[in-house]
Amino acid sequence: VTLRRLTAEEIEQAKRDLPAWRFESDRIARSLKLKDFNEAFSVMCRIALLAEKLDHHPEWSNVYNRIEIALTTHDVSGLSARDLDMARRIDALIP
Amino acid sequence: VTLRRLTAEEIEQAKRDLPAWRFESDRIARSLKLKDFNEAFSVMCRIALLAEKLDHHPEWSNVYNRIEIALTTHDVSGLSARDLDMARRIDALIP
Repeated sequence: VTLRRLTAEEIEQAKRDLPAWRFESDRIARSLKLKDFNEAFSVMCRIALLAEKLDHHPEWSNVYNRIEIALTTHDVSGLSARDLDMARRIDALIP
Repeated sequence: VTLRRLTAEEIEQAKRDLPAWRFESDRIARSLKLKDFNEAFSVMCRIALLAEKLDHHPEWSNVYNRIEIALTTHDVSGLSARDLDMARRIDALIP
């Protein structure tokens, strides 16, 4: 599959499918709040494994029980189907 | 040991002991660049275990092979001996 930027229509559809994500200009972002650092870092480990499997890595930060995750596709300078796929998988693993 | 803010003199000494760290107003920060995501996240796992053991958690972010780590002690609104201890231990585990 050729990697390409999502169309405006595809982005509108994605907003409906991924209500937990903020759609910013060239990326999508989600904030997570877990119980404590143990739970937050456990989620980060699962996301890290996913990132390696899909070869698609988040830009993310963590402060104690909070995680900020952003997804973008540098090769298309914006959003691609890979970001939506990753976002769906992240949503699926959050406790 | 009572947790207290480091004195100006202690901070000057710490700057000499921790040359890899940037001393900012109320925190110390270090940037790391590893080979790839696998190595970066492996280092993050080791730091996470250390953070739990010491009950002192970093504010940090990661983009692929890069990690930004900041340490501060909220209970004293600045730097304490716990930050220096953590920084030394982080330096010791970096490959």
